[in-house]
Amino acid sequence: MTKFEKLRKKIISKRFIVGIVGVGYVGEALGRATCEAGIKTIGFEISRSRVENLRNQIPRNFHLTDNKKYLSKCDVICICVPTPLSAKGNPDTTLLENAAAEIANYLIPGQLIITESSVAPGTSKNIIKPILEKSGFTAGTDFYLGYSPERVDPGNNNFTVSNIPKVVSGINEESRQLTTDFYSTFVKKTVPVASMEAAELTKIMENVFRLVNITLVNEIAEYARGVNINIWEVIDAAATKPFGFLAHYPGPGAGGYCIPVLPVYLLDSAKKNKVKLPLITLAEKLNKKQPDKVADLALKLINGNGNAKLINGDKPKALLVGISYKEEVSDTRESKAIIIWKKLEKEGVEVQYHDPYIKKYNGSESRELTTDFLNNVDMIIVATPHKKIKYESLISAQKPLIDTKNHLSSYNKPFIYRI
Amino acid sequence: MTKFEKLRKKIISKRFIVGIVGVGYVGEALGRATCEAGIKTIGFEISRSRVENLRNQIPRNFHLTDNKKYLSKCDVICICVPTPLSAKGNPDTTLLENAAAEIANYLIPGQLIITESSVAPGTSKNIIKPILEKSGFTAGTDFYLGYSPERVDPGNNNFTVSNIPKVVSGINEESRQLTTDFYSTFVKKTVPVASMEAAELTKIMENVFRLVNITLVNEIAEYARGVNINIWEVIDAAATKPFGFLAHYPGPGAGGYCIPVLPVYLLDSAKKNKVKLPLITLAEKLNKKQPDKVADLALKLINGNGNAKLINGDKPKALLVGISYKEEVSDTRESKAIIIWKKLEKEGVEVQYHDPYIKKYNGSESRELTTDFLNNVDMIIVATPHKKIKYESLISAQKPLIDTKNHLSSYNKPFIYRI
Repeated sequence: MTKFEKLRKKIISKRFIVGIVGVGYVGEALGRATCEAGIKTIGFEISRSRVENLRNQIPRNFHLTDNKKYLSKCDVICICVPTPLSAKGNPDTTLLENAAAEIANYLIPGQLIITESSVAPGTSKNIIKPILEKSGFTAGTDFYLGYSPERVDPGNNNFTVSNIPKVVSGINEESRQLTTDFYSTFVKKTVPVASMEAAELTKIMENVFRLVNITLVNEIAEYARGVNINIWEVIDAAATKPFGFLAHYPGPGAGGYCIPVLPVYLLDSAKKNKVKLPLITLAEKLNKKQPDKVADLALKLINGNGNAKLINGDKPKALLVGISYKEEVSDTRESKAIIIWKKLEKEGVEVQYHDPYIKKYNGSESRELTTDFLNNVDMIIVATPHKKIKYESLISAQKPLIDTKNHLSSYNKPFIYRI
Repeated sequence: MTKFEKLRKKIISKRFIVGIVGVGYVGEALGRATCEAGIKTIGFEISRSRVENLRNQIPRNFHLTDNKKYLSKCDVICICVPTPLSAKGNPDTTLLENAAAEIANYLIPGQLIITESSVAPGTSKNIIKPILEKSGFTAGTDFYLGYSPERVDPGNNNFTVSNIPKVVSGINEESRQLTTDFYSTFVKKTVPVASMEAAELTKIMENVFRLVNITLVNEIAEYARGVNINIWEVIDAAATKPFGFLAHYPGPGAGGYCIPVLPVYLLDSAKKNKVKLPLITLAEKLNKKQPDKVADLALKLINGNGNAKLINGDKPKALLVGISYKEEVSDTRESKAIIIWKKLEKEGVEVQYHDPYIKKYNGSESRELTTDFLNNVDMIIVATPHKKIKYESLISAQKPLIDTKNHLSSYNKPFIYRI
């Protein structure tokens, strides 16, 4: 039996071990799915605090370790580390390269290595492959190399790893076949594509679509505000069109580790390949500016152009409600609420926050929505409207309130402002 | 019984006459639906050639006339005239204003006037209403005024007037109620919105969404070409994501009387209201340039950078296949194929065309795809791939062929170029 046939047999019979490198939200979701399918799963995670957080949440058979030597015990290894932006806003693949280098140290022939991290087209072939081959082994023959982008949507309970179709690819036909076999053991539908580059671009295209459409709806919202039309009603009406439309909603700008991040990876790659992407370039720029609009409206209200009466004199107080990048998650990466916070502080406003998912942030603590506390703030910004926030308390305070996502429209109060 | 109650009773019992002003594709589709529902329908159409064309196609009980005095016989009048761009590319509402003026001449109290033409927000209230009130009657009391945007998708057999939800609005509650009642007699679902402006913006938003997303996919296609990835495979893979994505496809640019037109109406209105719409402005500009990319590739092939061998010396011949603005229609308004044609002619290329839906265009005749004819052309551009075109003949010619919409991918021939 060839190496290929041997691994294939192991995978199909589910008698194999999968290693997950990086147990963030992607690795956690993947590990849950493999454990549920009865596959032996080892999570490699170096962050102690992350491991502590995971201990009580994950299935019992999801083994966590920071000991890399167990990489050699795995038949399949999935790389699930983040691919963020650097402080300067450029693509930063350091974590990914480090993960590949560690795997190279322990690589043994016959293993299948799959990247799930979102990357620019060409990364699997031109960055990951050469690093892994420092092991002395060749991708496609000694070991197998695949790419299958994660599509996890945190906070969305309708879709999980197992019922979201999985795009799969490999550096050669054998690698792609094994990658398909692996996901088929716990995912309902796999979607093979011809090249790893096509799979890489697929994920980016999905995120670029979101970025551009969220930016577009924010732009139309600005027009609607200018001519006094309720944009939310318009979106709902347009959404009744049974073809050719998909509703997106205004807000303080798209945040998180995918929508504002992956388009930057694409723009960077386009620049290197001398392709101009003017529409995506502009959308990325406009989305970055979107939180400023919220901050500007807040300052306008604070400075009395609205109906605010400053009770805190020249050190006005604003309450930021919901600081994660989207509803029902605790993640603040690329959260536009944080940008609003920073801008207001820069302008001399004291910012406090309330978020039921985030107890502490950057030296601050989530404040309880007591009457005393709310009486003492000058204005409120609902940036991320989690379901479990006590909106009744916010309304009772009768302070100028910016409702960035139209969550409080049913209250219909004169002190509520839409962006 | 009040005027309102009287008209309402007539409408609900289907004992009323509807007049349709302008029997283009919108008026024709509307009239078919009212006739099918057993409503007495009169179409007002001044173009004799259009009337001739319609005679044998429309239901027998769909009466056509150019005699405006019958407007006074109608209980409900729907304005369905086109709202195109002027030669200079600006919004041109002349036909709409003329229609309203004619109706004003024959207006009688108790009528319901509804506009279906796509317009900038505020048009019904600020342009149509004052013109109609030149009759001496007041909108909302003497007569009723509604707005309900058409959503007809020519060539799409799955959706017709009766099964596409209809957004309805009126200048006051009574007008909106009557408009809702009217459409409810032959449309499955009506969607009332608070104002005519909201209904007007709804239609524009749907078209802007399409324009921006078609422009976006053309931009990503350019990147994909640059790095040698098959964009069509990527789109199909992305389309397997069960949320947050809607597939759009590359091509020679969005054409027709809606997608490239209505965004210009919005941009014009935004300018007047001092709102900036940078993303839509850019998308509109890029979409206009898209056919140039096809023409440029054609010129490149003609000039021998591809594998073309000019058989017609310094007067090369190109065959343009499909010149309507989209598949399965005969309409050439804002068709990007025509832009390609013009550009090639300007560069000294002789252009001939083949389109099974368009026998004659601008002094040219649709050419048969005979072997002799095809042998004598230097290259082929498939701009609008109608189903009934004989692609086998095109392939047999083995000429350089630009396949703008990837319709011929299954042939996999070296002389086929994607844009």
